[in-house]
Amino acid sequence: MKQIKAALLGFGTVGTGVVKAFADNADLLRQRLDAEVVLTRIATRDIERSRGVEVAPGVLTQDVDSILVDPDIDLVIELMGGYEPARTYILKAIAHGKDVVTANKALLALHGPEIFEAARKAGVDVFYEAAVAGAIPVITAIRENLGVNRFQSVFGILNGTCNYILTRMTDEGADFAEVLEDAQTQGYAEADPTFDVEGIDAAHKLSVLISLCFGTPVDFDQIYTEGIGAISALDIQFAREFGYKIKLLAICKEDGGRIEARVHPTMLPQGHPLSDVDGVFNAVRIMGDFSGPIMLSGRGAGMEATAGAVMGDVMAAVRNRHRDASGRSPACGYRSDAIRSLDIKPMDEIQSHYYLRFMARDQPGVLGQIAGILGGEGIGIARMIQTERHVENTVPVVILTHDTCEANIRAALAQIDALDVVGEPSRLIRIEASLD
Amino acid sequence: MKQIKAALLGFGTVGTGVVKAFADNADLLRQRLDAEVVLTRIATRDIERSRGVEVAPGVLTQDVDSILVDPDIDLVIELMGGYEPARTYILKAIAHGKDVVTANKALLALHGPEIFEAARKAGVDVFYEAAVAGAIPVITAIRENLGVNRFQSVFGILNGTCNYILTRMTDEGADFAEVLEDAQTQGYAEADPTFDVEGIDAAHKLSVLISLCFGTPVDFDQIYTEGIGAISALDIQFAREFGYKIKLLAICKEDGGRIEARVHPTMLPQGHPLSDVDGVFNAVRIMGDFSGPIMLSGRGAGMEATAGAVMGDVMAAVRNRHRDASGRSPACGYRSDAIRSLDIKPMDEIQSHYYLRFMARDQPGVLGQIAGILGGEGIGIARMIQTERHVENTVPVVILTHDTCEANIRAALAQIDALDVVGEPSRLIRIEASLD
Repeated sequence: MKQIKAALLGFGTVGTGVVKAFADNADLLRQRLDAEVVLTRIATRDIERSRGVEVAPGVLTQDVDSILVDPDIDLVIELMGGYEPARTYILKAIAHGKDVVTANKALLALHGPEIFEAARKAGVDVFYEAAVAGAIPVITAIRENLGVNRFQSVFGILNGTCNYILTRMTDEGADFAEVLEDAQTQGYAEADPTFDVEGIDAAHKLSVLISLCFGTPVDFDQIYTEGIGAISALDIQFAREFGYKIKLLAICKEDGGRIEARVHPTMLPQGHPLSDVDGVFNAVRIMGDFSGPIMLSGRGAGMEATAGAVMGDVMAAVRNRHRDASGRSPACGYRSDAIRSLDIKPMDEIQSHYYLRFMARDQPGVLGQIAGILGGEGIGIARMIQTERHVENTVPVVILTHDTCEANIRAALAQIDALDVVGEPSRLIRIEASLD
Repeated sequence: MKQIKAALLGFGTVGTGVVKAFADNADLLRQRLDAEVVLTRIATRDIERSRGVEVAPGVLTQDVDSILVDPDIDLVIELMGGYEPARTYILKAIAHGKDVVTANKALLALHGPEIFEAARKAGVDVFYEAAVAGAIPVITAIRENLGVNRFQSVFGILNGTCNYILTRMTDEGADFAEVLEDAQTQGYAEADPTFDVEGIDAAHKLSVLISLCFGTPVDFDQIYTEGIGAISALDIQFAREFGYKIKLLAICKEDGGRIEARVHPTMLPQGHPLSDVDGVFNAVRIMGDFSGPIMLSGRGAGMEATAGAVMGDVMAAVRNRHRDASGRSPACGYRSDAIRSLDIKPMDEIQSHYYLRFMARDQPGVLGQIAGILGGEGIGIARMIQTERHVENTVPVVILTHDTCEANIRAALAQIDALDVVGEPSRLIRIEASLD
């Protein structure tokens, strides 16, 4: 039986899970694959530290380069994360004819096109199922099974840390800062949570999904990204009263040859399929013209879940290599001559329903002033409440708008925030009212 | 560019959708595939009838055999359904070196092993993503992405007709017969609904999923199959009162080298991820040791949804053939030498919680007799209600049991049904309390 040799770069949590999968579920690899796959090298800085998994002598190395140039290695599994040296290593592995499996969404979001083109030229595979939504096979679904579809939209809950924090804020009525601190203690949030809570990680993943759905590279800076740090217990409470739940949603929509691409806290109607995806779970809802709505959910992170997805990719790479069919599918799902550059729709032009919260002085005429400004910008009011819940000497005024344009909302908020009778800056949360 | 020629057997609803996909989304096939795929023949009995899609002259034929032996045809798409002549045609196509894409779950449930073995020997692909859960890519997920997992359980809502009927019964408080009749009028149920409402179709699909998960052929007759015809509005109402929803669930669980395989109406706690899958939607929840719970949902039937899944398979077959890698993955996900025969656990041995409903005479001592018999069989009672809702001269007594063995339940019910004070036969609905 043909033997295919794999090497691992990075021996952290997911890497440990991969070693575990190679060992514990070796029978399944034998039963399902026509070639034998063996993990022969693991590159890590700290070759002394025990991870609680057994590693044969001589497998661990600090010398990445010896792996990348080793003609015996067929497949490199990159689980280091970050842009560099991961990018350099992957490109070098490709240049040496190796297939690559990676879970590195940040790298793919910024350097995906370069890596995919290098793989195409070298005739090797780059697989990255674990880069988006952990155990959920969304990459394969879009690239392979749903490939005939013209996609109308993709909605994703793609960051488990944010979803965990928002779920606890919702369940406990707690504020962001205290839940974040507790999440850090419990290991659900990183010591530096910036990438997660500011929406950057979700935007990385959205960028990968967009290129898969539409065959277009995405200028990452053009994805509008807003984190969850400004969500307050008050907003979550109002959301509930109006029948909504707040999720950090990654959204893309196709609109006349342009792509809407945005990550921000979003109010979803209770009963929306994504509104019940709680805790660290991820979910993706894809709307295709043939498939209709497809929803996939599961664990978005964690040692085993992510390692399992990595192993699915390893098996695909082994199957291709065994049959001399590496590069059988283009890495982004489109032929290189079909990759086109689609414009990202400017945020000012998007249409949405909005939740607006103003902290207004409790005095006559304030509501009239606010409503007047909204009316002047052509913004229709669907619902409005003013409550007695005083915060210092102001009261919250909450308005839900009809479908309206972001530019008009921005213009109105600028005027309202300039009013004497309004305290802290207005809050805006977009509402996803439709399912498509 | 290499050209791959496909032929369609069967020009019904899904076949029409496939023709539509080839025509309407031809750009996506060109953009995503390295080979050109063209639909050159369509075999149908009625070559005169218009299906509202354009077909080039000479494509339609009544002569299936001319397709099966035509050396120019690379790929046969079987959408006729039924056991014969579909089986004969597929085997002949395979014998002539053609890849096969089929949506025929009944055929695969009964003759899958024969067809897969023929394909292996011929070195061709048999793909069948559309056979289970329509647009939902569950076959690929299990065979490819989740392939490293040891599966603990699979739960599926796999029959859209049943789910539609149960959803309407739940929403409207209506009885089975009237909803079925209306569903037939509206095209959601067949004129002869036997396969759907008796659970046979769901059992076919479960059989396919079991062979994919565990690499074991399934003797179809060993799958316990119970339909929804006996579900009454009364049971649905009691279910709601206890916090449950009734779904026709296909269940498989691995238990010490034996497989539990059953299809029956099941009470799911409200809030269970599958309990909110309503109407014609299908869903599958898979529990793997690495992946954790994965849930996939979407349209289980319909022209476009099923055709889209067929086209995903067509694209996979084209990719393999273009790279001379047909048969790259074994059709059932396991190497032929790894296929083993696992026993199906006898139904008497399964453990479950149960909902039991007795129609008892409204007189002293009845409850005591029933409870005494249950106690004698070692069945623990979790909840019991007796209501004033008289049906003729009996009242319903409803009991939820603790975890217990099916054999004990059966023995108890036989004794209870023999009591003078009990009217119509007892009703039993299994409860799926856990998520795993």
